[in-house]
Formats: sequence, structure tokens, C-alpha cells
Amino acid sequence: MLYGVTGKILKVDLDQQRTSVEEHDEAFYRTYGGGGCLASYYLLKERPAKIEPLSPDNLLVFASGPLVGTGIPGGNRFSVAAISPLTGCYGEAEAGGWWSPELKKAGYDAIIVEGAAEKPVYLWIDEGTVRIRDAAHLWGKDTGETQDIIRCELGSRSVRVAAIGPGGENLVRFACVVNNLRHTNGRSGMGAVMGSKNLKAIALHGRQQVPMKDREALIRIRRWYAENFMDHPVERVLHDGGTIGWDVTELDEAGILPTRNFHSGSFEHADAICGETFHRDFFVEADGCWACPVRCKRVARSQGPDVVDPRYGGPEYETAGAFGSLCGVSNLEAVCKAHELCNKYTLDTISTGSTIAFAMECFENGLLTHEDTGGLELRFGNDRAMLQLIQQIATREGIGDLLAEGSRRAAQQIGGGSERFAMQTKGQEMAMHEPRGKASLALAYALSSSGANHTEAPHDFLFQPGAFGVGDMAELGILEGVAAQYLGPEKVRQFAYMQMTWQVFNTLGMCIFTAGPGKLLKMSQVAQALAAATGWDTSLWEVMKLGERTITAKRAVSVRQGISRSDDRLPERMFEPLEGGLLKGKALDRAEFERALDLYYDALGWDPRTGVPTPGKLNELGLGWASPLLDQFRGRE
Amino acid sequence: MLYGVTGKILKVDLDQQRTSVEEHDEAFYRTYGGGGCLASYYLLKERPAKIEPLSPDNLLVFASGPLVGTGIPGGNRFSVAAISPLTGCYGEAEAGGWWSPELKKAGYDAIIVEGAAEKPVYLWIDEGTVRIRDAAHLWGKDTGETQDIIRCELGSRSVRVAAIGPGGENLVRFACVVNNLRHTNGRSGMGAVMGSKNLKAIALHGRQQVPMKDREALIRIRRWYAENFMDHPVERVLHDGGTIGWDVTELDEAGILPTRNFHSGSFEHADAICGETFHRDFFVEADGCWACPVRCKRVARSQGPDVVDPRYGGPEYETAGAFGSLCGVSNLEAVCKAHELCNKYTLDTISTGSTIAFAMECFENGLLTHEDTGGLELRFGNDRAMLQLIQQIATREGIGDLLAEGSRRAAQQIGGGSERFAMQTKGQEMAMHEPRGKASLALAYALSSSGANHTEAPHDFLFQPGAFGVGDMAELGILEGVAAQYLGPEKVRQFAYMQMTWQVFNTLGMCIFTAGPGKLLKMSQVAQALAAATGWDTSLWEVMKLGERTITAKRAVSVRQGISRSDDRLPERMFEPLEGGLLKGKALDRAEFERALDLYYDALGWDPRTGVPTPGKLNELGLGWASPLLDQFRGRE
Repeated sequence: MLYGVTGKILKVDLDQQRTSVEEHDEAFYRTYGGGGCLASYYLLKERPAKIEPLSPDNLLVFASGPLVGTGIPGGNRFSVAAISPLTGCYGEAEAGGWWSPELKKAGYDAIIVEGAAEKPVYLWIDEGTVRIRDAAHLWGKDTGETQDIIRCELGSRSVRVAAIGPGGENLVRFACVVNNLRHTNGRSGMGAVMGSKNLKAIALHGRQQVPMKDREALIRIRRWYAENFMDHPVERVLHDGGTIGWDVTELDEAGILPTRNFHSGSFEHADAICGETFHRDFFVEADGCWACPVRCKRVARSQGPDVVDPRYGGPEYETAGAFGSLCGVSNLEAVCKAHELCNKYTLDTISTGSTIAFAMECFENGLLTHEDTGGLELRFGNDRAMLQLIQQIATREGIGDLLAEGSRRAAQQIGGGSERFAMQTKGQEMAMHEPRGKASLALAYALSSSGANHTEAPHDFLFQPGAFGVGDMAELGILEGVAAQYLGPEKVRQFAYMQMTWQVFNTLGMCIFTAGPGKLLKMSQVAQALAAATGWDTSLWEVMKLGERTITAKRAVSVRQGISRSDDRLPERMFEPLEGGLLKGKALDRAEFERALDLYYDALGWDPRTGVPTPGKLNELGLGWASPLLDQFRGRE
Repeated sequence: MLYGVTGKILKVDLDQQRTSVEEHDEAFYRTYGGGGCLASYYLLKERPAKIEPLSPDNLLVFASGPLVGTGIPGGNRFSVAAISPLTGCYGEAEAGGWWSPELKKAGYDAIIVEGAAEKPVYLWIDEGTVRIRDAAHLWGKDTGETQDIIRCELGSRSVRVAAIGPGGENLVRFACVVNNLRHTNGRSGMGAVMGSKNLKAIALHGRQQVPMKDREALIRIRRWYAENFMDHPVERVLHDGGTIGWDVTELDEAGILPTRNFHSGSFEHADAICGETFHRDFFVEADGCWACPVRCKRVARSQGPDVVDPRYGGPEYETAGAFGSLCGVSNLEAVCKAHELCNKYTLDTISTGSTIAFAMECFENGLLTHEDTGGLELRFGNDRAMLQLIQQIATREGIGDLLAEGSRRAAQQIGGGSERFAMQTKGQEMAMHEPRGKASLALAYALSSSGANHTEAPHDFLFQPGAFGVGDMAELGILEGVAAQYLGPEKVRQFAYMQMTWQVFNTLGMCIFTAGPGKLLKMSQVAQALAAATGWDTSLWEVMKLGERTITAKRAVSVRQGISRSDDRLPERMFEPLEGGLLKGKALDRAEFERALDLYYDALGWDPRTGVPTPGKLNELGLGWASPLLDQFRGRE
């Protein structure tokens, strides 16, 4: 008997309109966990190299993890993964909320979708029973309409719906997946993959709790967390102000608030888009996820002029940055509206904001004209143009059709040197964290297998022991942190370990806001919780190896799509001086960056010439079976 | 304040006849622990490349570890390390007993000896006070005489003496160090390094217990162990019969008892040298080490014809194998006598027995003649010749002078193809474990930085979960063992992890007989004990990283002495069929062996072309400072 996991993985073949169930044993779950590692397993095992992301060949994975639904705070996440239409390599996005625990309650740890339906469908999973239902009447509907109709026709208000809106349907390359209207698997264009499969939504209902080996131990951890999180400087801030309340002001003051497409690290109107303003003018209530007392989500409302519907939640810091400072927009109501539109239409707020900022810079430099924009005066700060473009991107109207391809492809079309305005790595736009001020982000963005990804590894602000009086990395052998802007050898070492911690969470289904470096729950408590949930005789060693395996498994997927060291890059702007803010003049050093990459590849067991994981490292991680799949990419070896 | 360690390392400069004390902080001890890792730190940090082992340039390290003296069963070991005169690369040997806890009680975690005294001296460390005393009157004395005289002149029967006899003085390249007459730092010729420094002995006395952070927790572990070890199939066998009682019969039946210089895996007279015979005819009492209830040591006595003195303890399995089956000798009394002589004269029983077996094979094949041997009929089974040769090796008389160089150098002198009879890697003779039947030993012997070393990593018999009903490697993510003779990828993976466990013990000062794979104490209990002793917020992750660091630090030392992948070899005989026993016909597959090495280097982060640790791996392990020291050995890189 298995504990902590259902042991069942649902496979949905949309070509054949058939479903089946794969059962796995303890060894499988200990090796692949869930989330991105499990998704990588299926992408490697069941797919050939060089898949076309928007073809039926792509595999779309919805994966919870062994800690989901266990009651440990933050144990409510899931990953949607596939080959990304934005990057062409491993794509993934996580979300929290209630969908992931519901999936396990409904009887499955993960769903693997292959092929594509001829006509729009949605999946309805009710207590283990799966139906593929017609979704013709849902096509074209936004997420709110979609959820309403599905709940109505299934006769239950409590059905959990993850869906795409027009963005996903129209194959916007950065379309997201939204569950419960407020929780988004934002990045990598997973919504477009759903769209390409004519899969409108997955609706869930389940009541069966996965059995736990030692529920009392989990309850103790949960209680302890609930009693203590408000005394923790990070958790408390997240509870009190959400990410928007925490980051905008602090990052602006530190000179690392991405502003006007990463020209500056400080925004003169930061106050207008910060948490204080948000809470004063637009805050309705805090929201949260299953079994988590932090409730870090904010809900926004506005009566207009830009009416903002609270059904769709409210902006995270990333959204405030992407539609605020990055676009030079100081109108927080417009930012909230942009958030609402993105959740309605299923667009990733980061890539949407960044692609618009890219277009603004093109416009300011004459590479886009009024003719291109359909008359829009697409300058930094023009919030009207920004909101208009979101609509057009979702529907691929006018210039929206070009921008729906993401900044890298758009730049290739626009030409004229506009590539240097596309703030992306591997095709995915950078999140609202400034590598010139947080060196760990330089590594995270360059090295993540899914392109610039701010959830790849803890940020420098978090992983300096003592930075918040919460130096808890001693258990990993890191007794002293290093400065945020330092990109030397010790940063690489710490980054590698830190990356393992967040990739542990990724694959176990944990939130990065409750546990790990700079958070209340220690890594060893996460390992204890895992043991309590599953009954595994596990340890922090095995858990960290799971994180390491996750990193390398994802890399293996990307390598098979053609990614190599030459793709582990940053936008050129990162090597140019910041133009404003506390760190004005600061640039990354190219030689230092390359040296850091060299050290990283060695540390991870990837060939530094190619960035391809070595056969022996794959073998050590239990991924030896995947090594022959990478042989053709080993180049000189 | 430090717990669990003294924080003090004694440095003895024999050139200047001066001593000094280095103090270190928690970060130092967490990084380098003690034992071989600490020794490697000093060899890398304070010595140049390509040291001549018997010159004053060599550094001789006596290092306990953070678990020594804590009361955890088996926490009583220390390493003696230096560049080895036998191998020319990293040399090390561990011993248990009482000497190591006494060192910490006397105020030091380790002693670093540099230079060489003009005349014989010994060190006397009494409650922190160090004296360098004249040892002219001790020179030429065996260990028993030496200990008696030192105790007499220091006026205490409880002084702990580690000393060399004639073997060390005469620079026999496999001379050992003996403490309390019964405990030996056997391998790598550390006794010869002592001899080259004119250092006859180190005498200790101390009463100061190192403070522990949580002594109660340690007492609980100790009590739990004491209450349970007799129910454990391995610990019980060790307690009841010692290693001689366990291994001879079992290995013979399994076809892996090294016989007649590794020609056969079965000895027709195994019964005559087995534990049952020993206990019937020669056993006096069991003996043990500080704070360990197992008491796995045997004490032997015989009234003659070969009178055996029980002061010197009795033979381990290694000794019974080396002087018994390996030399084709069925006279167990002669084996016990050989043991006594080796402990008196400070000769490593394994290398002594193996070098004599080598000489026997040379003689049988006409490569050595009566003229060479001084009339000895040096055939397999001639126990009289064997005992005679031990004497001659210690004193370098006659052919003993040649054999005192070890089998590799002797073969170079003898020529005629005799190299193929030298059962050594990197110049160190293989221990009494048969790689053709235990594939993990093929890797341990080939890859250990100190040459063929049976304490490098757990043996296959031990690390198969379930082999003894003690599958306890799940905490390392190993859920299923693989067959002993299997040398495929999964063996490499398990070997790498297992090697880390024993190297953890090496550096923490723990015995491999009480903890780890196939033993009673789990690795996680070792980590808990370490936390209790030191107060460190540590984890199994950090502890295993310490093991990994130890492996690579030792390798770095050997690389600087010129070792590369081409030295990671096994004797040719290992690729030839076993001539007798259950595994008759079994040979290692060369291609499989080379593939296993490839996978291992990748897994450890060593360049598979050169066997040199990569800069990024060294950096990840906190050894980045040592990377430039290896640059000249990176070859093509």
C-alpha cells in the first residue's frame, strides 16, 4: 500500500478519445516525485527529440506531488509542463490554489495528455471517473464564463476548474492556464499547448483523502507552523501585504525594480504602484491556497474608470512590476485591470507585460510606427495602449498577432536590431527581478531549462543567512551567505544548493513561500513531512537528490529539444550599466558570468562545453536510461 | 565555544624542535571534519606537489574526528596520513583503540608533524603540554619494549603509546603504526614516514572530556545501541567471532577467499585457518575499543612451537587471509605468530603477506631462486619461510631488503614478467577481498586515492539491502541492492554513495563496524549524533557532502603526486579466470570495468579523461581554493 500518493497516473489520449491509468510503485515516486521531475520523466520516456510544441506530438502534463494535500502549509501546488511554444524547450509553470489537492482527492497524482482532439473538449474527473466532454460551447469564452458554464452543467459549485481563455485558444505563445480564476500556471505558454490540443479545461471533483502514514506528525507540523508563521519576518510580510506589499518598495529602494524594459532599477512612480497604494485603493480581501494560513494572495476591485472584477483576484508583485514599472505605467488601477484581463484571457502577466515593454521600446526607437500599432502611441507610460494591446494579443488582432509570438519572435520579425530590446532567455521573458542587482537571478535566468524563470532558485535577498534573521541553511552546510551582487565561485556553489531546494518543492508540490531558505519551515522539516506523509524512510540527502535530479531531468528534456550551453545566455542589456536607481552604473561582468557558468556545469555534472549532462551523472541520479537519448547532442564528446 | 572538538590542532616542527597550536572555528570542522579530509587539507595547503615521501618534506598527520570520544559506539578511530612511500600518492591508515579519544582528552583534535628530527625522538603530550623527548634508547626496540620503556620513564601505566618498531625505523615501505600493541594504522607505510622523521612514538595522557552540546542524546544512542547490537546479524557475528570468525569460512564457501596469490577463491585448508579453529586452539579473550560494546578484536596465545604472545592481540580476517590462504599456509599458529611479529615490528600484515605471496609465486616460477632467498624454499604453504621473511623484511636482511620495498618495486627489480604476480594498485597490495566476486572491491581498489584499500567503501556483501535483513539504505534513496558480481551502472551509482558513507566515518572518526550500510546505526543516527556532540544544525545532506568532499580531497592530494586515470587500474589477474572455488572461471570484464570507471568519474565530478576533479566540483565542495593546485595536471583541458 502506498501512502501520500494515489499511485495512479491518468493518461488521456485525445487522438483516440481514450483514457487509461498507469500505476506506479514507491520506487517510482521516490525517484520522480511529481511536478517537473515526473513531467520530465514522461517527456523523456514517451516522446522523441525535437517535438513541435503546438503539434499533437507534444505531451501535456498536469502533476501534483507527494506533499500535496498532506496538510503541510504550502503543500497545494502543481505543475503544468510540456515542450514550450515560447522557448521550444522544456516548459513548465506552477500554480497553487485548490486544484492540485482536488486532483489527488479525485484519485490521481498526475494527468498526462497526449495527441489533440478534433474538436474542443474538456475533461471531467469525478471521484476517479473520467469523461471527455464536448467543449464547443465553451470555445471563445473567457475563464470566468467557462468556469460558470462548467459548474452549471456539472451541477456543482465546488468543481475545481483549470481552463484556458482566448489566449490559449489563439495559441498565444505565452498563454497560461488559470484555475479558480485566481491561480495561474503562468509561464512557458502551457495554455497554448492546451489550446493546440483543443483542451479547454479540466474540471475536478474528489473527496477521497490520500492515506497518510503518520497524520499526527503532519498535524503537529501544521500546528507549529500556524502558531509561528506570524513571528517570521518573511511569512508575516507575505501574510500582511502579499508579494505586492513586500517587493515593489523594497526593490525600488534597492535599485532593482525593473523599470522601462530594464533600463533602470528604480521607478519614479514606484509609490503609485506599491503595496501601500494597492491596499489603500484597491484591496478587497486576502486570499490563499488550500491548507495554508499565510494567505498571501490579494484580491483587487475598482469601480472604474477601469472597472476591476474581484473574481479574478489581484496582481502579484510580478504583475505590478511587469505592467507597472517595466512599462513605465504609474496607474495602479490599469495594472489591476491588466491582471484581470490576463486571468480572463489566460495570458502570462510577466511575458505579456515584458513583450509590451519590448514593443514600447521598439516604438520609442522608431522600429515600430503608428502604422504598425494601428495608431497606438506605444510609449512607456501609456496605460491605455497597454490595456488595448492585452486585448489584441489575446485575440491576435493587429499588432497583437505579432506580439502574441513573444518578444524573441517579434524581434526577429521587426528586425532593425530590436533583438536587443527583447529581455528574454531561451525565448522566455525575464521576470521582475534584476540580475545586475541579484546575481543569483543571472544564474537562474540563464540556466533554467525553461528560460528566464524566477522560481528556479531562491533569490539572493532570501538566501543570505541572517538577512532576515532566519539563517537556516546551516543544515545544507552553508554557514555564511554572500553579497547579492557577488557572482563569484561561492555564489555558484550556494546557487546550486539553493536551486536544489526550490526544485525539491517543485517536484513535491510545495510552495516556496512557506519552506526552505529564508522561510519558516526548514528543509529538514520538509523531509520529515515527506516521511510522515509517505512512510518512506527518507532523509534530507534523498530529498536534495530529488531536487538535483529534477534540475538535470528538465535539462535533459531541453537538451533533446536542441538547447546547449550557447543558449544559456542573458540579454545583452544585463552587461550594460543600469541607468538609474541605487545601482546606477552597475553591469554584469561577462567574463565573471562565463566563469560562473563553467563552475556551475562542473558542479551539476554537465559537460561545460555543451551543457549536456554527462552519462555518469545521469546514472548517479538514477536517470541513466535517459543518457542514450542525449548522445546525439554531446557534440565533441 | 566549540563542542565535540577541542578546536586545537598541534603542529610539531621536528626540524626546529618546536611545537605550536592552530585554532580553528566551527566552519573549519564542518568543512574538513577530521581524519583523511583534515589530513588532505593540510597536505594540499601546506605542501607542494610531488613530495618525496621519505624526505623531511612529507607531512605526517594524526587526526581524530568530531565523533571521537563522544560515546557513540565506534567513535574511537583516527587516521595517520601522509604521502605514502608505498604508492607515492595519498597514504592513510586508520586505527581504533584508545589512542584517539586520549588525543582529544589531551587537548588536540590532530597532530601535524613536519620536517625530521636529527636524532630519534618521541612526543609526549600530557594534558595539552607537549614535549619532544629523546628516543635514542628506544631506537631498535620493538613496540612492546618501546611501550614498556616509555610508560616506565613517564611513570604511568595508562599512557597511550603509538609507536614504530624496526619495520618503521628501517623504512619498510609498508611499515605500520601500532598503538597499545594491538591496534594498527596498517596500510600505506605510515610507519616508514614516522621512521623517516626519526619519530619513534607519540605518547598521550589526558583527562579532559571535550564538551558535548547534548550529552543526553549521545547517551541515549549509546544505550540503544548496547541494548540492540546483539540482535543485529552483523554486529552479533563481529562480537561473537571477530572478523576472523566471520569471514574465512563464509568467503571460502562463496569462492572469494584469496588463495595462493589470488589464483583461487577457495582454500582447501580453509577450515584450518578459520574462526572455529582459532577459537578452539588460540583464543584467549575478546578485546575492543573505547566505548564500544562489540569487542570484535580477538586475542591469541600459543605455547608453541611458535610461541604467540597475547600482548599483541590476535589476527583479524585480513591477517588470516594474507598469511593463510594467500600464502597457501594452513598452520594457524604460524599465522598468529606472523601477526604478532608484524605488530612487534610494525609491518602491515596485508602488504607483508601479499608481498611474501608474490615472492612465493616468483619462486615457484623460477624468477627467484635459492640464491636469491638465501636458501629458503619459498613455495606456497611454507610457513617457516614465511615467518623467516617477516623477520628479514623488518630488518631488511637478505631478500627482505628487496621485499621491504613492496611487491611493485620488488617486481621491477626481479623483472622477468614478475609484475603480473604483484597484486597491487598504485603500489599498494590488495586486501583479502576478491574483486572478481565482489565488484564493489574492483572499484574500491582501482579508485581509492591510497591504492587498493578495503576500507574505502562498503563491500558488496554489506550493501545489499536484505542481505542480512538490514536494508537500511533507503534513507540514501537506494531501495534495491544489486548482485555482488554485477559491475554495471547501478553498481557504480551505489558504490559512489556507499563510498561517501565510509568516508564520512573516516573523517568523523567512526568505525565501519557499528554504523552505516549493513550495520546497526543508520547514517541518519550518525548525523544526529554529530549534531548532539557538536551542536551543529547539521543534516544527513551535509554529512554525506563531507564524505564526498573527503573522497575528492584525497584524490586532489594524489593528483598532485602525479596520479591520473591511467593509475586507476587493477592487477591483470583480475581479468583472468579464477582457478578454483565456487566462482572458478570468473573474470572481470575489461570493457565493463572501464565503462564503470567512466560513469564513476562523471558522478564524482572528475574529468573522465584524466581523473582530475573539475574546478566547479571542487568549488561546489568548498575546495575551490585547491583547484589551481591541480591545473598543471589537467592535461588536455
